[in-house]
Amino acid sequence: MSADARILVINPNSNAGVTAAMAEALAPFARPDGPRIDCTTLEEGPFGIESQADIESVVLPLARLVAREKAAAYVIACFSDPGLQVCREATRAPVLGVREAGVLTALARADRFGIIAIQNRSIRRHLRALREIGAIGRLAGDRSLDMSVAETASGEATFGRMLEIGRTLRDTDGAEAIVLGCTGMTRHRAALEAELGIPVVDPTQAAVAMALGAVLAG
Amino acid sequence: MSADARILVINPNSNAGVTAAMAEALAPFARPDGPRIDCTTLEEGPFGIESQADIESVVLPLARLVAREKAAAYVIACFSDPGLQVCREATRAPVLGVREAGVLTALARADRFGIIAIQNRSIRRHLRALREIGAIGRLAGDRSLDMSVAETASGEATFGRMLEIGRTLRDTDGAEAIVLGCTGMTRHRAALEAELGIPVVDPTQAAVAMALGAVLAG
Amino acid sequence: MSADARILVINPNSNAGVTAAMAEALAPFARPDGPRIDCTTLEEGPFGIESQADIESVVLPLARLVAREKAAAYVIACFSDPGLQVCREATRAPVLGVREAGVLTALARADRFGIIAIQNRSIRRHLRALREIGAIGRLAGDRSLDMSVAETASGEATFGRMLEIGRTLRDTDGAEAIVLGCTGMTRHRAALEAELGIPVVDPTQAAVAMALGAVLAG
Amino acid sequence: MSADARILVINPNSNAGVTAAMAEALAPFARPDGPRIDCTTLEEGPFGIESQADIESVVLPLARLVAREKAAAYVIACFSDPGLQVCREATRAPVLGVREAGVLTALARADRFGIIAIQNRSIRRHLRALREIGAIGRLAGDRSLDMSVAETASGEATFGRMLEIGRTLRDTDGAEAIVLGCTGMTRHRAALEAELGIPVVDPTQAAVAMALGAVLAG
Amino acid sequence: MSADARILVINPNSNAGVTAAMAEALAPFARPDGPRIDCTTLEEGPFGIESQADIESVVLPLARLVAREKAAAYVIACFSDPGLQVCREATRAPVLGVREAGVLTALARADRFGIIAIQNRSIRRHLRALREIGAIGRLAGDRSLDMSVAETASGEATFGRMLEIGRTLRDTDGAEAIVLGCTGMTRHRAALEAELGIPVVDPTQAAVAMALGAVLAG
Amino acid sequence: MSADARILVINPNSNAGVTAAMAEALAPFARPDGPRIDCTTLEEGPFGIESQADIESVVLPLARLVAREKAAAYVIACFSDPGLQVCREATRAPVLGVREAGVLTALARADRFGIIAIQNRSIRRHLRALREIGAIGRLAGDRSLDMSVAETASGEATFGRMLEIGRTLRDTDGAEAIVLGCTGMTRHRAALEAELGIPVVDPTQAAVAMALGAVLAG
Repeated sequence: MSADARILVINPNSNAGVTAAMAEALAPFARPDGPRIDCTTLEEGPFGIESQADIESVVLPLARLVAREKAAAYVIACFSDPGLQVCREATRAPVLGVREAGVLTALARADRFGIIAIQNRSIRRHLRALREIGAIGRLAGDRSLDMSVAETASGEATFGRMLEIGRTLRDTDGAEAIVLGCTGMTRHRAALEAELGIPVVDPTQAAVAMALGAVLAG
Repeated sequence: MSADARILVINPNSNAGVTAAMAEALAPFARPDGPRIDCTTLEEGPFGIESQADIESVVLPLARLVAREKAAAYVIACFSDPGLQVCREATRAPVLGVREAGVLTALARADRFGIIAIQNRSIRRHLRALREIGAIGRLAGDRSLDMSVAETASGEATFGRMLEIGRTLRDTDGAEAIVLGCTGMTRHRAALEAELGIPVVDPTQAAVAMALGAVLAG
Repeated sequence: MSADARILVINPNSNAGVTAAMAEALAPFARPDGPRIDCTTLEEGPFGIESQADIESVVLPLARLVAREKAAAYVIACFSDPGLQVCREATRAPVLGVREAGVLTALARADRFGIIAIQNRSIRRHLRALREIGAIGRLAGDRSLDMSVAETASGEATFGRMLEIGRTLRDTDGAEAIVLGCTGMTRHRAALEAELGIPVVDPTQAAVAMALGAVLAG
Repeated sequence: MSADARILVINPNSNAGVTAAMAEALAPFARPDGPRIDCTTLEEGPFGIESQADIESVVLPLARLVAREKAAAYVIACFSDPGLQVCREATRAPVLGVREAGVLTALARADRFGIIAIQNRSIRRHLRALREIGAIGRLAGDRSLDMSVAETASGEATFGRMLEIGRTLRDTDGAEAIVLGCTGMTRHRAALEAELGIPVVDPTQAAVAMALGAVLAG
Repeated sequence: MSADARILVINPNSNAGVTAAMAEALAPFARPDGPRIDCTTLEEGPFGIESQADIESVVLPLARLVAREKAAAYVIACFSDPGLQVCREATRAPVLGVREAGVLTALARADRFGIIAIQNRSIRRHLRALREIGAIGRLAGDRSLDMSVAETASGEATFGRMLEIGRTLRDTDGAEAIVLGCTGMTRHRAALEAELGIPVVDPTQAAVAMALGAVLAG
Repeated sequence: MSADARILVINPNSNAGVTAAMAEALAPFARPDGPRIDCTTLEEGPFGIESQADIESVVLPLARLVAREKAAAYVIACFSDPGLQVCREATRAPVLGVREAGVLTALARADRFGIIAIQNRSIRRHLRALREIGAIGRLAGDRSLDMSVAETASGEATFGRMLEIGRTLRDTDGAEAIVLGCTGMTRHRAALEAELGIPVVDPTQAAVAMALGAVLAG
């Protein structure tokens, strides 16, 4: 690992506030002796990623960014894992998607997992992706906050709703670990884990940990 | 994370040489600002773990060690993942098995993976475990060096054989990533990855990276 | 089959009352012309097997008992199937686990099956085991009596609760056969089957029948 | 169980020689104190069952025989399991198919199994059936003797070919148990098991053992 | 395609009224330049197909009809897909079953699908068939009208009940497409699709479209 | 269906020769009384679609074309099924992908299928897609011609190689139907089917048949 090695965490939406929050949440993962954790905003991205068109709109810009910006590893920080395949074609360095990393990390912590989604309509996308990666058989449940992204950003109410959904996933669905189905819930992770008493995995942190592992492996 | 936090990596066999090699291979994962990566030998373990009886013989000693030795996270460093369930019952801290962590990390890097086993007879155990965790559908192949553990320790011949098996997994079976099916092949990882041109995952490093992620998540 | 051939049914908990009830329930399977059905108590076992630590604590004692006590076939009579793999390593005679035998026998009688568990917390263990053996796709439901083992032993209330759970498995979940998820419900099997009108499989009887089949096959 | 209880084993082809061999092979399963094991020939059946039309031609005759002939349990003794569903509709007594019983019994003895088929063209039927019952994930291999039914009846050459196929299933495919894919190989079972050193399951014996278990369960 | 090529749609029950309704519903699929769509009644069939015995009773008559009546392609128009395998043995022309065609067509239109069954007891047959064909993992739900076939024929009440079930499949179970689980609901298809806003697939139309595709492919 | 209804078949590469060949191959599907089958070239597409970047590059242009060009149904005529999800978001009319339609149609014709790919590197994409749609369990084999697209266009040698691969899929892998893994092999379909004696499905024809079915259903 060269002295200036870095892990590039790309926020595919153009909301710089989200990127800043991400940088703060990932600060503990940076090491005095490297690699750095750089968070960047995809300029071409939409302000929020909700529809399939939003997802597709960032795919090629992501691949161009990966080809252009040198890094020891890349993290695509959106729970839809946009452009994962094409970014891997654009570099030989590891490229991690946060949905895959979050789900796979939950599988390393417990047998069956639940997902807290923000909106109902993303659940069908999750199910298709989980079937593609072969993790569907360990899904205990996928339940949404049924809130707008704006609402989730507003604080207290969000945590209460997350806790309610988390309890249902644990007690009704049998989830033994929880994956946060969005990159914007990191700040609630520790408190939610403390309340639920089962592992709660933040997908961005999970992907960065895997990226670190790949870089440190030498 | 307290100042003296540590990740405890437990070598369940009683071969201290293996533990020492592990400590060396994991040195890059330690951080100036913690947590420490402590490698320890399970005194009660057999010199090598080959049979099912060997595996079972370390299960309760592992659980006792986990209950007794405080750590922020634990890694069971044997590719049979002995005692994973009971160790999780013995602590609220994360407990990671290297087989699970290695396989799940490979799944985060590519679609289909191959395993390089040491001996033929362990393959059937892998298959049962992969079916249990739901990863069997992404296994491209599981092939063994067909060498004794002593032989694998002797160097050059081992790497040549690993490369040969790795090429078969990649070219004949379609593996897009490789998992090393043993905790004693770490030193060959980087060279093998360079030769094969696809990700090669060392299971102990993969588990430590996940443990780090859990500890740093705060 | 030699004149003194026997099937050794091992109760891994140290409650001799359970072993005695087992012997009574299995009496009809003994044949005038052999093999005998011998039920034995694992002295080293805990009084009841509830936690993962309880399960692990009997694994090696079971393997030792199997290696020591000669028999034409062995049945591990605990719904957690403790030590199945290692006992098979300890003898060339058939070793049957009651959970596997019970579930597989139900699959031979109907398409989808339900399990009546005693406690909620064992359900997650069942699910993992069913995924490992590939039977999860035919599970209609797994519901627990939510009673202590002591309560289940007390009689009438137990049967009423079993009937209630059995009806829910049949009518709500679509189970076409029921597996009793414990070795202590044998005496209720026939009455439950009569009430429900679908096959009810006692796991110990199912394993003994398979053991008999293996021994008689010559 | 009434004094004159019996298990009715139905040979769906009209070759009485096959039925006689079956009766001989099952003699050890009869008990002095019942139930009897009665083997019967389906008069309406074709001389041999090879095509799909042969299979379908015995379905309704089997259902009529089951409705007409009283028994404590029925075994359909043809590896295509013809008429299993409709026979179950025709009686409340247990109806076992030998393919299902043979495969499920093998699953109770080892992790992955192989099938020795007589002809290549039956393999595709096996695969569809194994997928239907959910056992396909544990199939190590299905290989045929590639002989005519007449040839398999002629003795020595048959056993040699079975041994050859059995070794390939064990050593190349990783089978840890073998299912005989036909009701006419029973006499070779014990010798094949002795040679291969892994369980060899005769499907008719397996089904009769399950039927016995159901009847003796009371 | 010869000038007088035809697709033969076989109604396996002997209710000529059903065949007439089928012919009307399929009229738009006929082409001025062929092939014709001929609907025929299986004389030997029961008036309605409800039990397993009903299903089996039409299998050989269907195979004989297929062998006797020349056509460029055949459609077995009963949601139990009776005799599919044996009819394929009886001709080299394509033979399509409406259940398979309906389900597979729904899979080509959306990710997860639901089935509207007529009666509860047919659901277990659907599940077994879906597991056999490998489509079970995409089933969102299978719910029945819980009406007699006679009631479903009576009109308005049927549509209301279909709409109610369709909404539950869509909103509670997450179905993104609906398959009509019977050949007698064709006339409600378009209205149901318009109300639900997701694809509604009539199985007979789906099979005829596939048959047309095979014939026109040349 | 309005008088001027049409099915729009979109060739996502910009090679107009391919589009012309497609139009010719689909001519038999057009009906005197509609709908028309219109084939169009995606102007923005690359000359050939080989890499993941090529696939992604046509996704948004396809969605725009679908939003802009009115049709009763759309067919995306590239075996990578680019943009299927986003095109479905862009219209309420049916959108069929040829890979999905081809595979699902093969499943309606036989139990296990094989794919003839053009290049080795596309096989891994097929496998991921088949796992996503749940069809992987019925794949007998996926083998490539290992030719460049230019070579495949040159005629005789192509057919010979297709026949060779088709025989291996049928005889070694057990395929009972074949899917052509490319939109440019249509002209060889009938001859290949005649030689192999099992159904050979052209994916574009399969998708157009399904589209016709959806439009004619009314």
